[in-house]
Amino acid sequence: MDTQLRSFLTIAADSDFSIHNLPYGIFSETKDGVRRAGVAIGDKVLDLAALEEAKLLTLTGGPYFNKPTLNDFIESGRDNWTAARSQVQSLLSAETATLRDDEQLQAKVLFDQSSVCLHLPLHVPGYTDFYSSKEHATNVGTMFRDPKNALLPNWTELPVGYNGRASTIIVSGQDVVRPSGQIKPNADERPIFSACRRLDFELETAFVVGKPNHIGQPISIDDAWEHIFGMVLLNDWSARDIQKWEYVPLGPFNAKTFASSISPWIVTLDALAPFKTDLPVQEPKPLAYLREHNSDTTYDINLSVEILAEKADEPTVVCNTNFKHMYWSMAQQLTHHTISGCSVQVGDLMGSGTISGPTPDSYGSMLEIAWNATKPVTLSNGETRTFIEDGDTVIMKGYSEKDGIRVGFGEVRGTLLPALDFKFMN
Amino acid sequence: MDTQLRSFLTIAADSDFSIHNLPYGIFSETKDGVRRAGVAIGDKVLDLAALEEAKLLTLTGGPYFNKPTLNDFIESGRDNWTAARSQVQSLLSAETATLRDDEQLQAKVLFDQSSVCLHLPLHVPGYTDFYSSKEHATNVGTMFRDPKNALLPNWTELPVGYNGRASTIIVSGQDVVRPSGQIKPNADERPIFSACRRLDFELETAFVVGKPNHIGQPISIDDAWEHIFGMVLLNDWSARDIQKWEYVPLGPFNAKTFASSISPWIVTLDALAPFKTDLPVQEPKPLAYLREHNSDTTYDINLSVEILAEKADEPTVVCNTNFKHMYWSMAQQLTHHTISGCSVQVGDLMGSGTISGPTPDSYGSMLEIAWNATKPVTLSNGETRTFIEDGDTVIMKGYSEKDGIRVGFGEVRGTLLPALDFKFMN
Repeated sequence: MDTQLRSFLTIAADSDFSIHNLPYGIFSETKDGVRRAGVAIGDKVLDLAALEEAKLLTLTGGPYFNKPTLNDFIESGRDNWTAARSQVQSLLSAETATLRDDEQLQAKVLFDQSSVCLHLPLHVPGYTDFYSSKEHATNVGTMFRDPKNALLPNWTELPVGYNGRASTIIVSGQDVVRPSGQIKPNADERPIFSACRRLDFELETAFVVGKPNHIGQPISIDDAWEHIFGMVLLNDWSARDIQKWEYVPLGPFNAKTFASSISPWIVTLDALAPFKTDLPVQEPKPLAYLREHNSDTTYDINLSVEILAEKADEPTVVCNTNFKHMYWSMAQQLTHHTISGCSVQVGDLMGSGTISGPTPDSYGSMLEIAWNATKPVTLSNGETRTFIEDGDTVIMKGYSEKDGIRVGFGEVRGTLLPALDFKFMN
Repeated sequence: MDTQLRSFLTIAADSDFSIHNLPYGIFSETKDGVRRAGVAIGDKVLDLAALEEAKLLTLTGGPYFNKPTLNDFIESGRDNWTAARSQVQSLLSAETATLRDDEQLQAKVLFDQSSVCLHLPLHVPGYTDFYSSKEHATNVGTMFRDPKNALLPNWTELPVGYNGRASTIIVSGQDVVRPSGQIKPNADERPIFSACRRLDFELETAFVVGKPNHIGQPISIDDAWEHIFGMVLLNDWSARDIQKWEYVPLGPFNAKTFASSISPWIVTLDALAPFKTDLPVQEPKPLAYLREHNSDTTYDINLSVEILAEKADEPTVVCNTNFKHMYWSMAQQLTHHTISGCSVQVGDLMGSGTISGPTPDSYGSMLEIAWNATKPVTLSNGETRTFIEDGDTVIMKGYSEKDGIRVGFGEVRGTLLPALDFKFMN
C-alpha cells in the first residue's frame, strides 16, 4: 500500500474515510433532494454524479452516478470499479491539480457529510444471513440446546445460512419499531400476542454481490472473490422471544424480518486488501468445493457496539471484537450459497452472522453479552440492560488499521421506538 | 355469477380459460420478441398492450400493458383491477360488437396460445413459503420426528413460514438442473459432495401481493384480502437429502433455492370468488390478530400432479387434492407475515406450502406419496418412482368448477435435467 498517498483535503488521522478508503454511498443535499452517488473522504462527500457530468471520470459505459442506487455502477463490472477508484484517488490526491486548485469545482463537488442525507446505497434484490461465528453458534447452542454438543454436526462442514427478508433492509439512522407477535412466556400455556420483550441486536458485516451468476451455474471457490464488490456493517435486529417460539422447524421469520440496518458507505474489497489476514484453521478440512488456495482470505476489521440510552449523555461500549474471528470466509459463503444452482444478483447482501469473539466482552449480541438475561450490563449512566430498551440507540462501528493507515466503515446506528398500540387483544 | 355470460369466441367446455376467468400473463410472439401483458381466453391470448394502444381499455393512469411484467398494473390498485376485468369481459362477450365484428382488430389482438412464448409474469421482489397443510406437516413430522407428536406445538398457533429465494422463481416450461451439494448418506461418516439423490416436487399454490404495506405497519386481518391480487400454481422443487443435512437450526436453504416454478397465468381473486368455501375448523381458536370474521375464506380448487417419464408416452397422475384442505387462509398468512412490522411489496409471492389431502392419493410430494421411499409409485409405462428421475417432467394443474363454470390455472410444468458434471471431488 502506498503510505505516501495524501489528499489535498485535511483528513483527521482517526478518520475512517482516508484517501485509502473511498467508500461509495448515496446522498442528497436535502431529505427529498436528488439522490446520487458519492464517495466519503474525511468529513466530506465527493459528488460522483457531478464529477461524471463534468467529464472528470472516464468509465466504460454509463452514466452511472446520477442515480438513486449504486447497482448500475456495480453491475458495470470490475474494470470500472478499479478505474473509478483510481481516478477518484487521483482527483483527491495532493499531487493532482484538477480539483486541488479549482475552488469553484470544489464548491460544486464537495459537501460536508454532516449536512447531507445518506440513503440506502443499494437496491437489495436478495438478503441472506449466514451464521459463521463459531463462538456465537457455540454460545447459542450452549444456552438453548446442549452445552456438551453446542455446535450442531453440520456447522463445521458448511457455512449455515438462511434467506432473510430484503424488503426491510434499512439504512443507518432510520428508527426501528419494537415488533409485536406471538411469544410463549409460560411453557404450559398457549402463546400470547405481545410486544417483543427480548429485543436484541446482532453485530454483523455483510458483503455486497457485484457480479451475478446464472441459475444452475454455481460460482466456484476460485471465482467467488470476483463476485464481491464490498462490505457494510449490519445490525440484524432480533426478537429473541418471538424467535424461540417460531423457529422450529423452518428457521427464524418474524423475529428477524422487521428490520435489518446497514451502514451507508460500502467499503470496497480493494480498499480492504491491505488488511487481509489468515482465516482460522478449519478442522475438519472442508470438502473440495469449499477449499481455498490461499489462507489469507479474511480481513482484520475491528468492530464495536455501543448502547446510548435515551437518558444517557454518552454511549457505553458493550462489545469489542474483530471480523477475523469468523470461521467461514465470504468466498466460502458465496460458493456454498450457489452450489445447488441458486443465482445471486447485483446488490444482494450476504450477512456474516453475529460476530462474536472468544471472550465475553467480544460477544456480538445482548443474548450472549448478558448471557440469556442472567448477567445484566451496566451502562455509563448506571442503568442496566439485559436486552435493548425503548429509546436506546445501538451504534456499531468498524475499521481496519495498519502502518498508520486507516480504512473504516463509519457506523450503523438505529434507535428503538416503542411497540405499536394494538387495538386487539388475545 | 352470471352463468349466461358467453364469449363470441369458441371456448371448449373444459377450458381453464373461460370468460369467467381472464387470468393475466406476459407473452411475446417470438422468443426474443416484445414482452407485454395478455389475458388467456380459451386457446387464445388477448393482447392487452394492443387493446390499450387502441384505446379500448379505460384505466386510471397508465399505460400499463406494454411492459415486461405486470407489476405496474397490479400496483395501480384495485379500482383498475376491477375496471380491466370488466372491460376485457365486455370486449370478449358475445353481446359486444367492438371486437366480435371487427376481424381486422381480432387479427391484431388475438394470438394462438400454442404459438406464443409465455414468460415470468412478475418481477418478484420477495418470496415466502408457508407450511399450512396440516396433513403435510403431520406426514413429515411422522416420518422424520415423532409420530406421536408429529405436529410441533407452534403449528396450530401460527402459519409457520420462512423466507425463500426470489431470484430463482422461474416460469413453467423452464428446465431445472438437478442440484448438487452436501448430503450425508452415512450417519457415522462425514457428508459427501454429490448430486441430489432425493429430488422432489412440492405441489403448492402461491398468492401475489397486490398492495404493499410500510415497514412497521402490519396489515390487519380485516384488510388482508385487499392486499392480494391473485394466485398461481407453484412447484417448490426440493432436494430432500440436502435439506435433511442442512436445515437444523435455521431452516431449508440450498435444498430449496435452486428453483421454484410457477404457472404463467395469474388467476385473480375476483375470478375465484364464486368458488369460496369454508376454511377447516381451527382448534384452538387463533389469537385475535389472526381471527377472520367470515368462515368462507378459502377456495375450492382441484389440484393434481402428473409425472411424464422421458420414455413414457403419457403422464401418470400421482396426486389429486384440493386447496380447500389448507388449514391457514391466505389472509392469515399475510397478516402473520407482517405482524412484526415486515413490509411486503407488489409482486411478492407467498407459497401455500405443500398441499396434501387426507388420503395417500392426495399427498402433494413424492416424499409423502412414496412414504420416504418405502412405497414406490408405478408409472403408466411400468417404471417406478420414489423420487423424480432425470428426464422426468412434473406437471401440476388446478381448476375450480361450479354450476358448469370453470376457472382454471392451466399448468406449471418443468423437466429435470441431469446434475452438472463437477470437476472437483470430495
